[in-house]
Amino acid sequence: MKSYIQHHEWKVIEDGFHPQWNKVTESLCSLGNGYMGHRGNFEEHYSGEKLQGSYLAGIYYPDKTRVGWWKNGYPEYFAKVLNAVNWIGIDVKIGEEVLDIAKGELLAFRRSLDMKNGVLDRHFELNLGPSAVQVRSQRLCHIKRKEIGLVKYSIRASDFKGKIALRPYLDFDVWNEDTNYDEQFWIGIDARSEQGKAVVIAETKKTKFRVAAHLRFELFLNDVPIAPERIDFQREKYAASTVEVDVKQGDVLSIVKYVSIVHSENHDEDALFKVGSDLVEEAEMLSYEKLYDEHAEAWSEKWRESDILIEGDVAAQQGIRFNIFHLNQTYSGEDERLNIGPKGFTGEKYGGSTYWDTEAYCLPFYLSTADKSIARNLLMYRYRHLGKAIENAGKLGFNSGAALYPMVTMTGEECHNEWEITFEEIHRNGAIAYAIHDYTRYTGDKTYLQEYGLEVLIGICRFWAQRVQFSKAKQQYVILGVTGPNEYENNVNNNWYTNYIAVWCLRYTYQCLLDLNKEQPERFNELQDKLNFKFEHETKLWGDIIEKMYFPYNEKEKLFLQQDGFLDKHLMLADELSEEIRPIHQNWSWDRILRSCFIKQADTLQGMFFFEEEFDVADIRRHFHYYEPMTVHESSLSPCVHAILAALIGDHDKAYEMYLRTARLDLDDYNNDTEDGLHITSMGGTWMAFVKGFSGMRVKNDKLYFNPFIPENWQSYSFKIRFRSHLLKITADKNGVQISNESDMPLSLYVHDQLLKVGAKQMLKAPYSVMI
Amino acid sequence: MKSYIQHHEWKVIEDGFHPQWNKVTESLCSLGNGYMGHRGNFEEHYSGEKLQGSYLAGIYYPDKTRVGWWKNGYPEYFAKVLNAVNWIGIDVKIGEEVLDIAKGELLAFRRSLDMKNGVLDRHFELNLGPSAVQVRSQRLCHIKRKEIGLVKYSIRASDFKGKIALRPYLDFDVWNEDTNYDEQFWIGIDARSEQGKAVVIAETKKTKFRVAAHLRFELFLNDVPIAPERIDFQREKYAASTVEVDVKQGDVLSIVKYVSIVHSENHDEDALFKVGSDLVEEAEMLSYEKLYDEHAEAWSEKWRESDILIEGDVAAQQGIRFNIFHLNQTYSGEDERLNIGPKGFTGEKYGGSTYWDTEAYCLPFYLSTADKSIARNLLMYRYRHLGKAIENAGKLGFNSGAALYPMVTMTGEECHNEWEITFEEIHRNGAIAYAIHDYTRYTGDKTYLQEYGLEVLIGICRFWAQRVQFSKAKQQYVILGVTGPNEYENNVNNNWYTNYIAVWCLRYTYQCLLDLNKEQPERFNELQDKLNFKFEHETKLWGDIIEKMYFPYNEKEKLFLQQDGFLDKHLMLADELSEEIRPIHQNWSWDRILRSCFIKQADTLQGMFFFEEEFDVADIRRHFHYYEPMTVHESSLSPCVHAILAALIGDHDKAYEMYLRTARLDLDDYNNDTEDGLHITSMGGTWMAFVKGFSGMRVKNDKLYFNPFIPENWQSYSFKIRFRSHLLKITADKNGVQISNESDMPLSLYVHDQLLKVGAKQMLKAPYSVMI
Repeated sequence: MKSYIQHHEWKVIEDGFHPQWNKVTESLCSLGNGYMGHRGNFEEHYSGEKLQGSYLAGIYYPDKTRVGWWKNGYPEYFAKVLNAVNWIGIDVKIGEEVLDIAKGELLAFRRSLDMKNGVLDRHFELNLGPSAVQVRSQRLCHIKRKEIGLVKYSIRASDFKGKIALRPYLDFDVWNEDTNYDEQFWIGIDARSEQGKAVVIAETKKTKFRVAAHLRFELFLNDVPIAPERIDFQREKYAASTVEVDVKQGDVLSIVKYVSIVHSENHDEDALFKVGSDLVEEAEMLSYEKLYDEHAEAWSEKWRESDILIEGDVAAQQGIRFNIFHLNQTYSGEDERLNIGPKGFTGEKYGGSTYWDTEAYCLPFYLSTADKSIARNLLMYRYRHLGKAIENAGKLGFNSGAALYPMVTMTGEECHNEWEITFEEIHRNGAIAYAIHDYTRYTGDKTYLQEYGLEVLIGICRFWAQRVQFSKAKQQYVILGVTGPNEYENNVNNNWYTNYIAVWCLRYTYQCLLDLNKEQPERFNELQDKLNFKFEHETKLWGDIIEKMYFPYNEKEKLFLQQDGFLDKHLMLADELSEEIRPIHQNWSWDRILRSCFIKQADTLQGMFFFEEEFDVADIRRHFHYYEPMTVHESSLSPCVHAILAALIGDHDKAYEMYLRTARLDLDDYNNDTEDGLHITSMGGTWMAFVKGFSGMRVKNDKLYFNPFIPENWQSYSFKIRFRSHLLKITADKNGVQISNESDMPLSLYVHDQLLKVGAKQMLKAPYSVMI
Repeated sequence: MKSYIQHHEWKVIEDGFHPQWNKVTESLCSLGNGYMGHRGNFEEHYSGEKLQGSYLAGIYYPDKTRVGWWKNGYPEYFAKVLNAVNWIGIDVKIGEEVLDIAKGELLAFRRSLDMKNGVLDRHFELNLGPSAVQVRSQRLCHIKRKEIGLVKYSIRASDFKGKIALRPYLDFDVWNEDTNYDEQFWIGIDARSEQGKAVVIAETKKTKFRVAAHLRFELFLNDVPIAPERIDFQREKYAASTVEVDVKQGDVLSIVKYVSIVHSENHDEDALFKVGSDLVEEAEMLSYEKLYDEHAEAWSEKWRESDILIEGDVAAQQGIRFNIFHLNQTYSGEDERLNIGPKGFTGEKYGGSTYWDTEAYCLPFYLSTADKSIARNLLMYRYRHLGKAIENAGKLGFNSGAALYPMVTMTGEECHNEWEITFEEIHRNGAIAYAIHDYTRYTGDKTYLQEYGLEVLIGICRFWAQRVQFSKAKQQYVILGVTGPNEYENNVNNNWYTNYIAVWCLRYTYQCLLDLNKEQPERFNELQDKLNFKFEHETKLWGDIIEKMYFPYNEKEKLFLQQDGFLDKHLMLADELSEEIRPIHQNWSWDRILRSCFIKQADTLQGMFFFEEEFDVADIRRHFHYYEPMTVHESSLSPCVHAILAALIGDHDKAYEMYLRTARLDLDDYNNDTEDGLHITSMGGTWMAFVKGFSGMRVKNDKLYFNPFIPENWQSYSFKIRFRSHLLKITADKNGVQISNESDMPLSLYVHDQLLKVGAKQMLKAPYSVMI
């Protein structure tokens, strides 16, 4: 755990440079706007440790799979997030010295992510020996004009006079850290610089995504525009212009860099040059200040609805805002082709874009804090991939429209290549079905379900109906050879969670089909025709499976077992493990982890989280007390689910403990891996842990429910959610909870299971009831 | 299945060139002498498809592991068989034309492996357009002078006059096909050619094995020695000399190439040049003919004892000799540092040298057909690796002298990197213990056991004692998370074979220790001290495990189950699988294979093969009839064990069917993978299938047992075995069996469970009894 980041309500501040953790800070200070993003690298040359990274959503490379031992069925490619054009770069020379923080004496340094306004600020003062300069930089990825990025960079010649040279550039000559065969992935198409207007066009290998980056810049000496000669330079995949300015001591030389980045997924390939050129011209005309204001206003708009306020705990306040900020930076939901990568725009790790994390951990955040169209687009993403999911299932031997969604994907094709995950972690199909239910339940909007979702659900159910098998020995259906959410077990039989969600999928889909037949018989028939779906025939088998599914159960302790044979394990508590062997995945061989009882992340409990209404609280408590103590939480996705369940069973201390583990995971570099990038999808979990945990928010039968409590050391907290046509602000303090209905329609809702009504633009107050 | 190889009792003949299968023929025609070997490549340049390969036993490269996803505990390196110096090469020019079979019109071609004499002959006639030549070549790896290789190459200018240029060479500038990072593994140290005497010295990267190859050659025109000018040439890792000879039509130009290859594992590095130079000089002095005679005589000696004669079935005759020939080429047993690689000197595949195949499938061949010192050296190999096996177990979290032998190794370190095999296929430990028992039982020699073997056994038992765990639920010991011999199941619980052999190891070792304490109390005490072995204390736990081990069992069918949950599978017969999905490992995804009931190779039955005396024949029959029909025999090691058990239970047709699958596996390229090299270790299984299957040979209580039968379409078969101080020849024909005692001591043995005595230099005849 690191603690060099200053606690601040709205900012992430590194005061004084920490080169040993530079890659961590780069991750923390990443900027993005859902379309593009980059890590918190420096503009000027830096010869120390860094991970240069600039990314474009949906621009990937299918890297040829690399494995030790090929298994039949492995995908041939792993789609990888690509490091793209470095557009922030400005090389600087002070006299004859290259400006490089690693090379001088750093008199002051401050890097500060301003989450409120969505900008990254930096200030430093460097003694270069004969001279000294003060530098200020600010940059942003415009949150409304998504193809625009801006950098403002000022050098004060605090102890220098002479020539300062600036070379703003665009550079596609970049390497991926994550490459299987040490290749570069970009092919240069064009690179030109003319009178300081630079353009570089490059294309990805294989996928042939074409990207055009345009650059213009303005110069100011003591805030007065100047126009020194621009010496153009270009080479393959790189274009730049150099200017030299004579400065006197005390002068401030500033450059504003306007960049546009456009690509062939959004524009005609032939039009890229012109579109990009027009955009950057327009940006320059508008000016940095105007664009900044527009950007900050848009962020302010986002915060108005998605902010969570905590009084009495700055660290917690910073933590939750950090999570919300990065979620908003990563995915904005306008483009249904996109999804939420595990590292967003903050790193290359985990290469592919989409995991079941989106459905299981991120969807609720977007459901509650943004227009429903955004969550709907996340569902549309899977609908668009249905054909590929059917192909994917086909590769594994399933047929007749059975769909298996990939574990990791960019295009709908499977990218992952560990057999125990790729082929066996099939519960992901369940989460994709669950998200349809979650969306429909939360929004009340059945149109996605009826127009699209049921096709996905039928594909998934067909998969389950083929994937189960009837055990003659048990006279029940079993599911053999799976990996559950707890990846510290591989290739187990009858993982309770998988069996449960499989049956749930069948039940839910069956019910939805019955409803559809009642409500829209035409669509029902159309669906049967389109999918060659024989309702009577296929659902007869589904019914049989629902009725006769086997669930491993221990009668004596009244416990569902995580999988067959769980009780043969040597059962221990995670607390019995000594500190030096934690995390176990870094200290134990894989087989030892598999044999142990230790659980990476919620598994049986994940099911009880999803389907809590199907269990008594006492059941959930019993299972929580059984499984949580064996859980090592070595997935970033683990604590959030446990926080919510702990709140549900009334264990507020545990809920708070689990919440803290998730909220400041990256800020404190809890798992020592933030340098690779941020844990974006776990941030959705943090939000859930807050809203579903502390406030106990649920939706049942079209009604909102709250069961709020407040952690002991907090004064108050408040947050807003959208619920259908309402915008609500929930505030909790020591005395109770207030719910303001900011919309112009009254709303009935439950607080501590009491039905209450809050009028339009009204507020209700409710004291805490005694919790169980 | 291919059938272009001619059936012949003593030869493997390709008549007419089959370029599409050239790599298969190259594998089949490999030569070796236990020290070095090479594939049946051509001497002259060949521009068609080939796999150039020349190998030196024990000369390997630890290639850095390549995996898709790293798991903690993976070995960092995979020791790989190295393609070494190409010493057979002779470039030929006829006038201005490079001699290349791929480039002219081939008028005749015959490649013929002479197994009787251990040489590879080739003859071809090539029309080069304006000219035509006839070529004959012969070569050998000298079976007694192991560091010597010879090539004799003659060109008849059948329709040509003019200059023929010959360039014999040594070439270390070779590539491995199997390299993780596309590297060359040899570094050139010296390469020189002086007056036709060439030497190349090269060293392996990392391991720094230094190898010196020396070359001399003689020339003859129409059998008369000639001495044209030798134009020397060298470059890095390569040395050659060119001679040009004017020939008249009908002239025969011949070259004899003498090569020595010596390395730093056997000689001082500094002496390599001189040793190699002396050796090659001596070889040249002796002449090709003399060396050939010596070589052929040595092979004749080998055949005298290890041959198996089959009358009435040329294909079967060729098959069994082919197996015996390659076993004798691969391992000669003089060097305890060496072992039997799965491909011998015939290819690179499976990289490492030693698998459990050696103990489970190859040891019996060497026990019965060679001096016991040879089998003992195979055991010493493991004794020498005990320290590494303890280290290996340590990496997986075991301690106190627990030993886990690696799955694949060259030096004792684990090379393999699939977690489900590397970490979990732990039954290999059992086979290594079993081999000690097998050796002791067969030879009656307890000295290995007492002086070395018990240390190995204690290490193995300590591993089992830590690897089992006590299930509170079952109140028995279980072994979780293993892969049994059937690799079509991964990470299963309570694999019957593994549990059984674990208990057997404990029982056997305990008994051996009791015996030792009686027979050699001093050694017993010394052992306790040396290993810090607390006999009473440790064997108390062993006893508890022996008593309380859990074995999955189905009471109703009286069947041991391959593993927990086996009966939940959808049980099918292999015959129900359609042909187009066989082999399933090429057509089904891995998870589907794992979920299926299909068995790759004997698993439960492997245990019944090892420990047949602990079961009734009726038990074995029941298990055979249950498991064999679910077995797809997709391991080359599968049919042999089934052949032996089929013979045991009296199913002679099945025994013959299984025997045929193993005996001609490579000759007919049954599995379509012979181009990678031959299945050397399965050849040991073939020999066992014959001797333990058809003749029913066993050793119990120091006595030999035979239960012979003869396949219907054979006239007779005969083979020899060594048994302690005896050499026996067993002949079976339609009427019965004859056993000749070629030694000068009488012997009592059992035929069909009748105790018979055969005097020194005597023969006994026994008719077939009625078999069950």
